[in-house]
Amino acid sequence: MQLEASAAGCWAALQACRERSPLVQCTTNFVSMDIMANTLLAAGASPAMAHSIGEVEDFVGIASALLVNVGTLSDDWVGGMRLGAQAAVAGGKPWVLDPVGCGATLYRSEVCAGLLRLKPTIVRGNASEILALAGAAGGPTKGVDSTAAADDDALHAAQALARQHGCVVAVSGAEDLVTDGSRVLRVANGVPLLQQITATGCSVTALVAAFVCLFPGQPLEENAAALSYFGLAAELAAADGAKGPGSLRVGLLDHLWTLSQEQVLAGSKIREG
Amino acid sequence: MQLEASAAGCWAALQACRERSPLVQCTTNFVSMDIMANTLLAAGASPAMAHSIGEVEDFVGIASALLVNVGTLSDDWVGGMRLGAQAAVAGGKPWVLDPVGCGATLYRSEVCAGLLRLKPTIVRGNASEILALAGAAGGPTKGVDSTAAADDDALHAAQALARQHGCVVAVSGAEDLVTDGSRVLRVANGVPLLQQITATGCSVTALVAAFVCLFPGQPLEENAAALSYFGLAAELAAADGAKGPGSLRVGLLDHLWTLSQEQVLAGSKIREG
Amino acid sequence: MQLEASAAGCWAALQACRERSPLVQCTTNFVSMDIMANTLLAAGASPAMAHSIGEVEDFVGIASALLVNVGTLSDDWVGGMRLGAQAAVAGGKPWVLDPVGCGATLYRSEVCAGLLRLKPTIVRGNASEILALAGAAGGPTKGVDSTAAADDDALHAAQALARQHGCVVAVSGAEDLVTDGSRVLRVANGVPLLQQITATGCSVTALVAAFVCLFPGQPLEENAAALSYFGLAAELAAADGAKGPGSLRVGLLDHLWTLSQEQVLAGSKIREG
Repeated sequence: MQLEASAAGCWAALQACRERSPLVQCTTNFVSMDIMANTLLAAGASPAMAHSIGEVEDFVGIASALLVNVGTLSDDWVGGMRLGAQAAVAGGKPWVLDPVGCGATLYRSEVCAGLLRLKPTIVRGNASEILALAGAAGGPTKGVDSTAAADDDALHAAQALARQHGCVVAVSGAEDLVTDGSRVLRVANGVPLLQQITATGCSVTALVAAFVCLFPGQPLEENAAALSYFGLAAELAAADGAKGPGSLRVGLLDHLWTLSQEQVLAGSKIREG
Repeated sequence: MQLEASAAGCWAALQACRERSPLVQCTTNFVSMDIMANTLLAAGASPAMAHSIGEVEDFVGIASALLVNVGTLSDDWVGGMRLGAQAAVAGGKPWVLDPVGCGATLYRSEVCAGLLRLKPTIVRGNASEILALAGAAGGPTKGVDSTAAADDDALHAAQALARQHGCVVAVSGAEDLVTDGSRVLRVANGVPLLQQITATGCSVTALVAAFVCLFPGQPLEENAAALSYFGLAAELAAADGAKGPGSLRVGLLDHLWTLSQEQVLAGSKIREG
Repeated sequence: MQLEASAAGCWAALQACRERSPLVQCTTNFVSMDIMANTLLAAGASPAMAHSIGEVEDFVGIASALLVNVGTLSDDWVGGMRLGAQAAVAGGKPWVLDPVGCGATLYRSEVCAGLLRLKPTIVRGNASEILALAGAAGGPTKGVDSTAAADDDALHAAQALARQHGCVVAVSGAEDLVTDGSRVLRVANGVPLLQQITATGCSVTALVAAFVCLFPGQPLEENAAALSYFGLAAELAAADGAKGPGSLRVGLLDHLWTLSQEQVLAGSKIREG
């Protein structure tokens, strides 16, 4: 089935996620685990959160997709990340890399570069992370927040990265960009206050992993659909009168669960170009 | 004091928990830590969340009960789980095993089987986990969610497990089952939407650990009381108009804290048979 | 700029935090990570949550302050805690020690004593923890909650500790105490129900770390400002009608984000003596 890069495609992907409830194996940072698992469950997907070298390959074996997020990195987790990625590739399953804080420390950049060589289906980060990962300019990032002002630089870096590694690259920002190296999709959903809730970026990348296994061979459209769905749920939560990051998080999870076809068709903002 | 397998017994157990504030040492998975500690606090209990071999025995020494949950398992945590369980048994304190995802991977099943040999007071899992732990049929589980449709199979497996290991076994489901191998209690509280909140199963098992130290020698009734109390709090949160998993979680914690005698007597559903 | 020990000083510190968005490197326990990162974000600060010996020094290098919290302690994290503290001292950056559960186990007390020798700028704990850290009486603490009734004992221990180690010591309680060994500030904000939300103590200590880098050489006033700000946000959330710990947590994060000058000036309760 062909997935449109549009609001209709966003709805089709969400519907497929709710119906098929893909199991997503997430090797992710400690900070994100609660909200990430809750995000996947609210989208109708099923999370597994293993990391151990003793079992991560087995979990990838029964999962539909893998997410690797390097947030609270340490040596004893890198082996599990690599084994998981290798098992995904060997099993023909998509995997998504979230290079959190890439560029902030040398250690982190090296681990991310090593994971990139294991052929992720999708890489998603903010402008600073993508620039650092691409070896492009970009000084040390400030923690895990984006400091690269120039979205154009990030888009060029993303396109180069995508072409060189044969993956889709997504850059988060006021407007999210998704590229396979030639085509570019832009997603304009979300609210600024999402940045005041920790690990919302990590969580939407897990949603990308849930969506990317649903329509084989269309990671660009699936990626955009996941970003739009998550951002739209946040918009509706804000419109409900969220007073700050506490109530926005509650409303976000509620709307991920209840979002209707009408709401998606009216609110999803995905465009090509 | 004799604890009834009834709404009155549920209230008596909750009252005792609020008055005596048992310290529960929880060695649990990363995903569950926030909501589990908050669940214990909302019930009037006191959580300790240690895992290190350097101190887990000491924490068991000052605690009233131990919970071991294998959710985000790795070799470096298994030693602490075993030491904790051994210290509990040596000190005559109850301990509860939550074999999360047992059956999903060989590694996980082996670790769970090893922990089972350390004589837990109570084992609580979903049907798939209990079937896998009992060595009964049940193919690989799908992540940490239950796939075994046949509740009867799970009950038989639970009874066999309970008799063989001298423990109480609880099986979560639309109706929860608790058995010591001969008697069976059934608890009919809860709402389906709880499954869209991560680690609610882990959290209620921690409540079981908090309750099981309150009325020595009555783990069957205490276990049922904890399940009923938690499920009832979720029912009241849903009745308040929770719109999805975000607001249900908030309301759940509020109602755990405020649940009154009248509400428990009117809503707790525990029956024998 | 001189920071007053007053409501006006509280507002000045909050305003500076929102404007300058300090990056705080937090090496903290698993239970606290979600709410701590969200607390810092709601205050306008920026969290980094690294712990690995491979990069913690680099993160301290780009951060404005370091928090070390020993909550879910294990040997493989102690090295990162020490390296981080040493890097902070070497770089002339403030660091804050939260000796969670000090006194509950020998292992924990020894690790805390070792960290204390690395010259924290501020130590913050409850009465039991401060008493245990000071080597003063105080039997084993009950988990991570305070059991020391005598606030006077805790104040004397805090003052001795502050003089001996050249740091500021804060003792949490119904009224928070902050001392540099001679002066004593008292903060009377907060609500009792905060104790039913896990890791609120950990989170406010992270706020202390965020504030302590804003007005060099005034850790006493900055510390009091952070405690007052957090407690006041909780008071306003309670006044909004929080029904229990679930809704209080949501309202707390909302009010941290929205707190206005008028609210701070009317509600902040800091006094000397």
